[in-house]
Amino acid sequence: MNIAVLGTGTVGRTIAGKLAELGHEVVVGTRDPESTLARTDPDGMGNPPYSVWQADHRAIRLTGYAEAAAGAELVVNATGGSGSLDALGLAGAANLAGKVLLDISNPLDFSRGFPPSLFVKDTDSLAEQIQRAFPEARVVKSLNTMTAAVMVDPGRVGGGDHSTFVSGNDADAKKTVVDLLASMGHTDVIDLGDLSTARAAEMLLPVWLRLMGALGTPYLQFKIVR
Amino acid sequence: MNIAVLGTGTVGRTIAGKLAELGHEVVVGTRDPESTLARTDPDGMGNPPYSVWQADHRAIRLTGYAEAAAGAELVVNATGGSGSLDALGLAGAANLAGKVLLDISNPLDFSRGFPPSLFVKDTDSLAEQIQRAFPEARVVKSLNTMTAAVMVDPGRVGGGDHSTFVSGNDADAKKTVVDLLASMGHTDVIDLGDLSTARAAEMLLPVWLRLMGALGTPYLQFKIVR
Repeated sequence: MNIAVLGTGTVGRTIAGKLAELGHEVVVGTRDPESTLARTDPDGMGNPPYSVWQADHRAIRLTGYAEAAAGAELVVNATGGSGSLDALGLAGAANLAGKVLLDISNPLDFSRGFPPSLFVKDTDSLAEQIQRAFPEARVVKSLNTMTAAVMVDPGRVGGGDHSTFVSGNDADAKKTVVDLLASMGHTDVIDLGDLSTARAAEMLLPVWLRLMGALGTPYLQFKIVR
Repeated sequence: MNIAVLGTGTVGRTIAGKLAELGHEVVVGTRDPESTLARTDPDGMGNPPYSVWQADHRAIRLTGYAEAAAGAELVVNATGGSGSLDALGLAGAANLAGKVLLDISNPLDFSRGFPPSLFVKDTDSLAEQIQRAFPEARVVKSLNTMTAAVMVDPGRVGGGDHSTFVSGNDADAKKTVVDLLASMGHTDVIDLGDLSTARAAEMLLPVWLRLMGALGTPYLQFKIVR
């Protein structure tokens, strides 16, 4: 599949690398490819500059948001939540129309420090904001409840014995995402329902962050026992 | 231990019955014991009237909120979230002072139908509202993330292989609650931290409710795999 991953941070790199490894044609989208490649310092999260990662992943081309989305059958929103609507706006509504838009972002507001609060919650979600802004995209929320390394390697925690959630209004789009998740090793994918259920999935972040603090590791997963 | 359970609904009855079975001296508190006992119709949730339950649990006395709390070493808030501050106000600050207050309530707002929204969330919690209103009580949040039957019989789901959260500012009070949880069969109790972490535990309700809808059962539990 031709896949565009929007976002050059840890989530974007991790997802893009795995999808390429699985045989997909992957392009990474960013606001300004030249300036992304020109950076030589670690990013705000302490990751090596993109160019270092790029050198190890030569098959994955870096382009602008719009060009990345234009050529893709499936678009992954791996941008930070506070910048997602802007980034998708630059990708362009026409380039997203009819496409599966896998939204991994979280509406985290770090303006008051750590732990962050949520800039949208409970009666609305970032996934629904994105769907309303791009009504022709087929938004599916998933993977936002785990650390990047586990998104592409579920076996890294508890041998993969845990749960992954999907939310979305389009059954075919959800099926595409569920198949993609299965190909990455997710064994218990729970369809929460329509895209309004993304509110619930996004509200898992606060407890995930508190658990990371209490347990001292991001390698923790929700398993829904039933 | 002398324990007061405030609330005569499913949660209150279930907790009170189990604690009495474990050998504790249990009193149930309600606004108006006479009118609670006089009811002959099922309650709003379809449960049999309290008098029917009372007939099977003669050792558990029903009293007013204040009398119940006055004689207790530990108070359980099993009232509905929207009425919790009122009920605890009737119990009386002096009767709660210095006592462990196990808060099971959830800030659910059903005014717009199902699923409910949360009337406090993210940057505050019902547990913290209670703590601020009764600063001398030692509030511990727990058990709010599961259905009543599982609170007192964790083995009913997945053989008990799942997680229970506690939040609170007072280490000794948390220890008392953790010991009580262990006596009821909870094997993986995770201390999320101070009472502000109850925000995260209360924000689990939306996904719990969505999962109940998606899976068709309230017998579902969060297990934190790590």
